[in-house]
Amino acid sequence: MSKPSLLILPGDGIGPEVMAEVERIIDWFGEKRGLEFDVTRDLVGGAAYDVHGTPLTDETMARAQEVDAVLLGAVGGPKYDSLPFELKPERGLLRLRKEMDLYANLRPAQCFDALADFSSLKREVVAGLDIMIVRELTSGIYFGEPRGIFREGNERVGINTQRYTESEIARVARSAFELARRRSGKVCSMEKANVMESGVLWREVVQEVHDAEYPDVELSHMYADAGAMQLVRWPKQFDVIVTDNLFGDLLSDAAAMLTGSLGMLPSASLGAPMENGRPKALYEPVHGSAPDIAGQGKANPCACILSFAMALRYSFDQGAEADRLERAVEKVLADGVRTADLIQAEGASPVSTSQMGDAILAAL
Amino acid sequence: MSKPSLLILPGDGIGPEVMAEVERIIDWFGEKRGLEFDVTRDLVGGAAYDVHGTPLTDETMARAQEVDAVLLGAVGGPKYDSLPFELKPERGLLRLRKEMDLYANLRPAQCFDALADFSSLKREVVAGLDIMIVRELTSGIYFGEPRGIFREGNERVGINTQRYTESEIARVARSAFELARRRSGKVCSMEKANVMESGVLWREVVQEVHDAEYPDVELSHMYADAGAMQLVRWPKQFDVIVTDNLFGDLLSDAAAMLTGSLGMLPSASLGAPMENGRPKALYEPVHGSAPDIAGQGKANPCACILSFAMALRYSFDQGAEADRLERAVEKVLADGVRTADLIQAEGASPVSTSQMGDAILAAL
Ligand SMILES: CC(C)[C@H](C(=O)O)[C@@H](O)C(=O)O
Ligand SMILES: CC(C)[C@H](C(=O)O)[C@@H](O)C(=O)O
Repeated sequence: MSKPSLLILPGDGIGPEVMAEVERIIDWFGEKRGLEFDVTRDLVGGAAYDVHGTPLTDETMARAQEVDAVLLGAVGGPKYDSLPFELKPERGLLRLRKEMDLYANLRPAQCFDALADFSSLKREVVAGLDIMIVRELTSGIYFGEPRGIFREGNERVGINTQRYTESEIARVARSAFELARRRSGKVCSMEKANVMESGVLWREVVQEVHDAEYPDVELSHMYADAGAMQLVRWPKQFDVIVTDNLFGDLLSDAAAMLTGSLGMLPSASLGAPMENGRPKALYEPVHGSAPDIAGQGKANPCACILSFAMALRYSFDQGAEADRLERAVEKVLADGVRTADLIQAEGASPVSTSQMGDAILAAL
Repeated sequence: MSKPSLLILPGDGIGPEVMAEVERIIDWFGEKRGLEFDVTRDLVGGAAYDVHGTPLTDETMARAQEVDAVLLGAVGGPKYDSLPFELKPERGLLRLRKEMDLYANLRPAQCFDALADFSSLKREVVAGLDIMIVRELTSGIYFGEPRGIFREGNERVGINTQRYTESEIARVARSAFELARRRSGKVCSMEKANVMESGVLWREVVQEVHDAEYPDVELSHMYADAGAMQLVRWPKQFDVIVTDNLFGDLLSDAAAMLTGSLGMLPSASLGAPMENGRPKALYEPVHGSAPDIAGQGKANPCACILSFAMALRYSFDQGAEADRLERAVEKVLADGVRTADLIQAEGASPVSTSQMGDAILAAL
């Protein structure tokens, strides 16, 4: 059997630094656990623009369609702020999501015990927190037409369109219900059905899919503004949350920040199964490119490493190996190893990106 | 000179209970401070639907256009959940906002010293917090066309349109800059210019208005998802935040919840100046209709009372009287008077809605 294939796209800012540590972990799994991957590397975002004048070449796009999984670091940076909309680093990432049709974005917001005090929230509010946000990722206002900046009389007008079809809603709802069955059996769906018709349809379709296919799962609905509030007030009331692309963007970031350790949070973006039965998949840390600390060896590689753990679980059916990697990260944290982002007290001294990688390899 | 006019719309759920306390405060200002108002009362939301079959009659709408200020309680409730979209209680409120053209929604997120421990966030993160969110309230995806649920082939499709003109952005930006001049001189504008063209235009216009008219104000820009994160991480970095209707809905609710005391937070929705120089204005508490506790005398009237304080300040140029009322509320809190929503420890006994009103009147 041929080795499963991985496309690695380190991207911009701290992307390359954290990805270098992931590559060491991948090598370890090849050498020590007989899990070998066929790895190729390419450019995305500003890094691709610098070389090719586009944030994603057609060749890279084609390669992403072929491989079993894509690992992405981060895209963006102030250097590219003044580029026209279509050339911005983010467009590379959005093209990958759209053309690979990665409709289900899984964003765990998990609070690591060793880091609970690091949250801006009280320990009792976040200790043990373990939420899974399922964000629709290929439709909604991110991709709807018409869009653009137009002239109307004397004025410019900015337009974007939120557009959801029944089947787009139904398939991501199914992803959420499936996950809930393997977790607490509880899903909360969020929209603004009191204000937006697309939210009315969202609520109806989620309810229909539930009633017809997942009556065993407990389903509730919440307006997204109330959801933002409740996430801050008492996040442990939630298990799986399913929501649209734009609400998911804000809510998953707020949820991530509750845990206090953004540098720890991975994500998976999954599409429909390919011929080999594996879902199309892209894995990336939730944190961004952090240009302010890029190139200094300060970045925390854990989120990117845990994204590879998600790849082991969701793409390669290696749940036990994923557990192994996650436990190694937890052990290192419990031992007090900390990159700069995980340090509160003055005086404590942080480890570098590669020292964190060393520690995780040692724990493995 | 004729008395300034107030239209009182208690609405649904706890609306009537909290508004009854506001009316006592209004009477006090008439008797003791010579500030008399010409008060009329009417129905909005579910309460209007129950009587008239519509969440806002044309007569009420016309009256709202005439008066110097509208005070609103809250709208909505599960009883009305199955009504068609156009008859939902929320449509009454949205029609008021739109037809009165109340484009600047001021939502202070202020943490009362006596209540800082009540937040789910650590005391040091929220004590002394005082943010002003300026939310655009009459445009964007709340009102853009086309909108609706349509049939396309075999499927339903839900559509809403985000649409912002240059002048809509410019006028709310001015509101934010004006406020900043009277506060810390700092504005942060939030959008998703990395993903939405309407966000690109938003950012450009806010910057242009700044450069041309308010170069003395310090302006920064942030993506709305990062904004949601930063509000959770370290809210005191912000003073005035300006953002669009939908982002403002989520971000102001999250910010409100940071303070831990939703029952304390007022809001003002302001439009252009009328002939008499006063802005069109509607004042309402940030909390909703709370149907679960309605009619039990448990609701906290402070948010609605503080909304009247905002009316004194922004509509009637009575800043000193507004201060007086706000100080009375602070004193009552400092004295330990608490409605049920402000009590954490078991055993402590809450006061009722009207007892809270009594205490504030006594403090005045
Ligand atoms: C980088 C940006 C395009 C992206 C988004 O808005 O989806 C990011 O915020 C995310 O959440 O993955
Ligand atoms: C009640 C509802 C229509 C309203 C909104 O979405 O604007 C509310 O959430 C608010 O923030 O005032």
